[in-house]
Amino acid sequence: MSPAKVTHENKRGWIIPIGGGDKKVKSSTIMQRFVELSGGSSSQMVIIPTASQLDTAGERTRDVFQELGVSEIEILDLETRADCNDPRLIEKLDNATGIFFTGGNQLRLATTIGGTDAAKSFRAGNARGIHIAGTSAGAAFVCEHMIAIGKSGGTPKRGMASLSPGLGLTNRVIVDQHFRERDRLGRLLTALAYNPFATGIGVDEDTAAFIGPDDVIEVFGSGGLTVVDPSGIEFSSMADAGMGQPVGLIGVQLHILLAGDRYDLKTQIAYSGGMAK
Amino acid sequence: MSPAKVTHENKRGWIIPIGGGDKKVKSSTIMQRFVELSGGSSSQMVIIPTASQLDTAGERTRDVFQELGVSEIEILDLETRADCNDPRLIEKLDNATGIFFTGGNQLRLATTIGGTDAAKSFRAGNARGIHIAGTSAGAAFVCEHMIAIGKSGGTPKRGMASLSPGLGLTNRVIVDQHFRERDRLGRLLTALAYNPFATGIGVDEDTAAFIGPDDVIEVFGSGGLTVVDPSGIEFSSMADAGMGQPVGLIGVQLHILLAGDRYDLKTQIAYSGGMAK
Repeated sequence: MSPAKVTHENKRGWIIPIGGGDKKVKSSTIMQRFVELSGGSSSQMVIIPTASQLDTAGERTRDVFQELGVSEIEILDLETRADCNDPRLIEKLDNATGIFFTGGNQLRLATTIGGTDAAKSFRAGNARGIHIAGTSAGAAFVCEHMIAIGKSGGTPKRGMASLSPGLGLTNRVIVDQHFRERDRLGRLLTALAYNPFATGIGVDEDTAAFIGPDDVIEVFGSGGLTVVDPSGIEFSSMADAGMGQPVGLIGVQLHILLAGDRYDLKTQIAYSGGMAK
Repeated sequence: MSPAKVTHENKRGWIIPIGGGDKKVKSSTIMQRFVELSGGSSSQMVIIPTASQLDTAGERTRDVFQELGVSEIEILDLETRADCNDPRLIEKLDNATGIFFTGGNQLRLATTIGGTDAAKSFRAGNARGIHIAGTSAGAAFVCEHMIAIGKSGGTPKRGMASLSPGLGLTNRVIVDQHFRERDRLGRLLTALAYNPFATGIGVDEDTAAFIGPDDVIEVFGSGGLTVVDPSGIEFSSMADAGMGQPVGLIGVQLHILLAGDRYDLKTQIAYSGGMAK
């Protein structure tokens, strides 16, 4: 599920993992910014409540978009794999300008949507310019390599994070969410230590990483964005650690970014409100 | 670590996961076929013994290539991440016609090579036409989504397989090796059930899946190739299963292929020695 190819006449849409904490998110600048990007009151929003088992997850998100002045809002119930291959449902994605994945269980997203026509349509739409946001489970799901399950704690241990293939909008980052609130630095480090090729981003609640078409991240919201750059790792003991044993890592770069800060995933440079950190 | 782009003047090299069982492999048709593809006695072979902690793994593979008439053989000791970013070592890959990853521990491959210049060079080389084979751990490593660790048994259970990012030569398959010998159908099904977008291939010892530039697999060797096609899965209980609990799956396609059989990863059709199965 690699990202779909962006043709030269198109710009990829923004990819927007949000750290969860829905009550706060819904009053925040994050949803305002998402609606602005998607065309303001002319936005055509599609909400995907698949991750949730609560019938109201889609409705609550619809209410937020309505308060922000959006009138064209579709809640697309992709409940089963058959739904995800049903052309009458998939075609509703064609005219979307923004797509929003609610929170819940990211394995429900991957097991229901993975490998279906809907998954292809999300990737192709993003490559064509549709902006795609997800909160909590929806944030984890946007990546090629998704943290499916894991344990809390600050330092990495072998087996602390389990990965699975996600939607695959981007292969540059591995996202973790509810980051500060659930003490997840250890599991993000574990996920990166298996193969330190991607950049880790730990997103606090009521915080979002707006990943632009140029792969520069802009931070919005009231919490922090923890960027873990493993590209300089000189040594990792992951291959020799027993299951559940701590993993040694030498050479990890860490940045804590706040609203207004930026991070360039191509150059791996962090900017504090415009200044390189 | 998505596959590098194949430009229109090039054909991707073959990708060749081998199921392990080195003593048998070395007397078999598998290595003969790999040498033939790579240019016969004019092959320029590079052996990567990183997965192994045995000093002799590279030498033993070199002996096999020598017996098959190859004279240009380089054992490239990529022991540390610094080695994998050393231009004097990486440039030795430039003129290779075939690259061979020995067995050992696939997490040693991913933690040492992942995200380095060597990883980029392997992907770019394969996209340019270099053939890349790997046995056992080396076979697991060629995929974008690699089975890093797991448990034996025939039926899938949540958590039975742990994935990590691999080298990323292909995103179409997830490979498992020593397949029949270590009773691994359950863990391959588990790996696929997280997100049923890739095709699973379980490779027995002394057996290889030669994945051509056209993504058609040809089977060589004395064992079986178990192809698991999850694209028709209608239902999976993975998202609701507790850790260690069995996972229900409805609609998996299974093929057991032998030497001379083929499988087209694009159309998902199996051919028995030339006949569609």
